[in-house]
Formats: sequence, structure tokens, C-alpha cells
Amino acid sequence: MKVFITGATGFIGKHLVRSLQKEGIEVAINLQDGEESPFSESVKNYFLCKKDILSDIEFFIRENFDGIIHLASLYLTDHDPEDVGHLIESNVKFGTYVLECGAKAKVKWFINTGTFWQDYQNSDYSPVNLYAASKQAFESIAQYYIETNQIRFCTIRLSDTYGLEDTRPKIFNHWIRIAKTGETLDMSWGEQIIDISYIDDIVNAYVLLASHLQNNNLLVTNGSVYATKAEKRYTLKELAAIFEEITGSKLSIKWGARSYREREVMIPWENAVVVPDWKPKVSIKEGLKLILNQT
Amino acid sequence: MKVFITGATGFIGKHLVRSLQKEGIEVAINLQDGEESPFSESVKNYFLCKKDILSDIEFFIRENFDGIIHLASLYLTDHDPEDVGHLIESNVKFGTYVLECGAKAKVKWFINTGTFWQDYQNSDYSPVNLYAASKQAFESIAQYYIETNQIRFCTIRLSDTYGLEDTRPKIFNHWIRIAKTGETLDMSWGEQIIDISYIDDIVNAYVLLASHLQNNNLLVTNGSVYATKAEKRYTLKELAAIFEEITGSKLSIKWGARSYREREVMIPWENAVVVPDWKPKVSIKEGLKLILNQT
Repeated sequence: MKVFITGATGFIGKHLVRSLQKEGIEVAINLQDGEESPFSESVKNYFLCKKDILSDIEFFIRENFDGIIHLASLYLTDHDPEDVGHLIESNVKFGTYVLECGAKAKVKWFINTGTFWQDYQNSDYSPVNLYAASKQAFESIAQYYIETNQIRFCTIRLSDTYGLEDTRPKIFNHWIRIAKTGETLDMSWGEQIIDISYIDDIVNAYVLLASHLQNNNLLVTNGSVYATKAEKRYTLKELAAIFEEITGSKLSIKWGARSYREREVMIPWENAVVVPDWKPKVSIKEGLKLILNQT
Repeated sequence: MKVFITGATGFIGKHLVRSLQKEGIEVAINLQDGEESPFSESVKNYFLCKKDILSDIEFFIRENFDGIIHLASLYLTDHDPEDVGHLIESNVKFGTYVLECGAKAKVKWFINTGTFWQDYQNSDYSPVNLYAASKQAFESIAQYYIETNQIRFCTIRLSDTYGLEDTRPKIFNHWIRIAKTGETLDMSWGEQIIDISYIDDIVNAYVLLASHLQNNNLLVTNGSVYATKAEKRYTLKELAAIFEEITGSKLSIKWGARSYREREVMIPWENAVVVPDWKPKVSIKEGLKLILNQT
């Protein structure tokens, strides 16, 4: 199998590339101008959008990829007016560009990445923010390709993720910091339910779906939207208690010192259907031990 | 009432601006670089995206518009790979830009323009082409603004339109040409049903919806998708017969000389709900007489 990956240098991308290589899958990645590959030379680098779309289509034809995994994304929890153009360009225009290349080059399949935030209040579609809306917009565009091209297209909508080498300013990283420094963290009342999965489970979902698509597994219908879902969900406050139990020390958190966000997700998407045959394997305790041992 | 219009220099725009002015509504329009206004000086010109979004938001605040009517669009029946970027920029990115400006400037309402081609085979969403998919993508984006801002947003999905001063390469213009020159036109078998409305009816739908939104008419719920629908639908072949009846001369058409398009719309969207209180007034015979008299 030979796969092209966008957004490969991000948190999920890095783990996914290594995992695919371990499975003996040939991997090429897209880099942005000025970006350097964090991988060995066995991972081929490419720069899309540098010349013109016809040369990029020729690249896809020449390389004869089986599939494309599209992780590239501009994530913004809130946006300023100046961000609007970048959000559409990164999350709609670039995805459409890659999908057009893949379709024209007769790539067999395309795995897109969405977010639980497309499904605020557990609705079919209610975007938490403009970022989530831009993800939905790309799925709307993809519907055209699903109906008019040979390429098989699926989306994996992700909720929270964590794991080794995660440098994003996410909650566990904040807690690891304050556990070290002793500083106090202002937080909301922490009653929001968190659906968070360990990176190895996330990566497995992509690898498994890629293999389903590659093997024309009948469980997977074209255009499907799947999710990764935590084995068990906890409130933010319960997660803090688990964290404290594992580290054996109290976190200095001022609960209730911050108000909830305007569209705080109190209950993550519940109708989510996971990738066929996929099950999370790493419990929150195991995952937390792994990331705590690294630091 | 004070309204800002994008795409005002197009076929529908020109008629709409004049009609709004007749109603005593103050109109400002957006022009693109190098474009000249076809209207009198009472229509104010503006150029969005020339500086930065913050100055454009200030313009909207300063002008204190009641509403925005968004007609600007890049229409392509089929696209080449090189068009992909332009389609997303014109039909998703620019619309989002205008909507962000309107929302931030607390404009009361926004009327968007969609297409029956978002509803191929009468489905809720099945895009005939990438153009239709880009229209759906913008509606996906708009959902975020509908749920998080004060601005009231509705879409009018249009089917075919015709009327005076229509210079687009549309079917009636082709027939008028061959009726004059005597040349023969290759066409498909002409069994596709056509839903075509006269421009005055189309314009009335916009004016009526604008007035509903302005007056907070409870018939109109935020986020609604409306349509304009012909009083009566005819097959293409029946339309040709009506055309011949009115002109009293036979059109030289080779029926069946061309094959149907790959996703030819044989039956236009039937679940379409028209703008509340709107009814088409101009029959196809009356409309055809009007355009035939002009030439």
C-alpha cells in the first residue's frame, strides 16, 4: 500500500506516519513552504500548490498512490475577522485541491478528518465554531466527488486526543506543568464531559479504515462519517481526580474561577459511529501513565 | 430600508437594483476591481476586500445597512482542475467574508442565493456539479453564523431564469439567434423538464423576502431555504413548441443530435418551498413575448 498524507508533521500525523511505516506501508507526505520533514528519508516529501494543479495531478498519477489521508487543518477555537480567509483556504480550498488531484489521478480512496464539534448538542449538524463549520463545508464539497468520481471518501471525526510528544496547549499538558511548578490554574466548574482518546487508538482507527478501503470492505460505504470514541467518558473534574490519583499529588486548580465558554460542549457527540471493527485499547489511566512517564 | 448587494452587475442584480430603487430602498453595491457601475449615481459603489476586513466591517457599521443580498457567484457548469481554487474563493470564501462583515456590523439580515442544482434527483442534497457543491459549502458555513449571531440568514435557491437584457448564453438566446440566422442547432432529445422563471418574478421573490426579514415576519424562520418555482413546468421540447407558436416560425433544431449531460437534470427539485406569499405572475408565453419584442 502506498499513501499520501497531508498535515503529517502535526501531532497525529507524526504518530500515523511511523505507524504506517511499521506496517510496511509506503508513505509520502506534503510539506508546506519552509517546513522540514521530521521523518527519515524513507518518507518522501512533496510540496503541493507550488506550481500548478496539473503538475500536482501528474505527481499523483506518477506516484500511483492507493490512498490519501488528509490531516492538514487550521484549528482555531475562536476566530477573529482576519482569520476568516485563512480558515476557508486551509480547511476548504486546500482539501478540495487535494481531493481534485486524487480524483483526477484515480487514487482509490481518501480519508478526511472532521471534528466532534460539527455536532454540537448531539445534533446532526450544528457547528461549535467557524473551524467546525469549515470542516462541514469541506464535507459538502466532497459529496460532489463521492457522487461523480471513482474515489471512495470517508471522514473520521475526532474528539479530544492526547499522547506522547504532544506539544499542543491541551489540558493534560497544563496539568503536567502546574504539577511541576505548583502554580494555580483557574478553570470552569469542570462538569463538561470529555471524550478523549490515546494517540495509538486514534492512529489505529486511520490504519484500520485505510485497510478497509484498500480491501473494498463492504462494511464501509462510500461517503461514511465515522468517529473515534473514548472507551469511557469522564467529566473534566473526574479526569483531574484520576490525574491526581496517578501522580499521588493534588493539582492546584481553582474550580469555577472561569466561566464556561459560550458554546461549551457539555456532552460530546453521542450518535457517533466508530470505524468498523475499531475499539479503543488504551484506558485513560494507562494513557496518563504513559505520558507522565515521558516527562 | 438600506441594502448592500453583491453581484449587482449580473443579470439578476441589474434588475433587482432597479426594482429596489423603485420601492424607495437605498441601495449600495459591491464592485470588483476594474468594474464600472451600470447604475445611476444614486447607487453607491464600494469595493470589498480592497484593504482589510476590519475596514470593511467599519464600512458596514458606518453605512448601517438593514440587509445584504448576496448574488455574487462564479458559475461553471463543468469545471477544469484549474477552476477549483476560483470556485471555492468566489462561492465560499467571499460569501463568508461578506457574512462575517455583516454579522460583526450587526446588519439585520442576509439573503443568500443558491441553486436547484444542490438538489439533484430531488434529494435533500446531491450536487449536480462542483458549483452546486460550493453553494452548499457556503450554506454549511452560514449555519455557524445563524446559530451564533443576531443576523437572520435565508437562502433563495434559483432554477432557470430569463428576461430582458439577458446576455447569458442561455437557451432562449440561442433560439432567438437561430431564428434570425436560420442556422441549425444540435440539441438533446429535449425531454428534460425545465423550471424557468421570468426575471420580474425572481426579483419580486428577493424584494418580498427582504421585506419579510425587515419586518420580522414570523412566517420566515432563521436559516430557511426557499426557492422560486415556475408556475408551470415544460419539457425543453414543449418550450421550443411554445417559442415557435409565438414567433410563428419553425426552429431548426436537430433533436437527439447531442447526448444528455452526464448528470442532466431531467426533473428539477420538486420539494422546493417558495418564498412565503410569493407567486410567479408572468407566464412563459407572456415572458417570451416580452423578450421577443425587445429584439
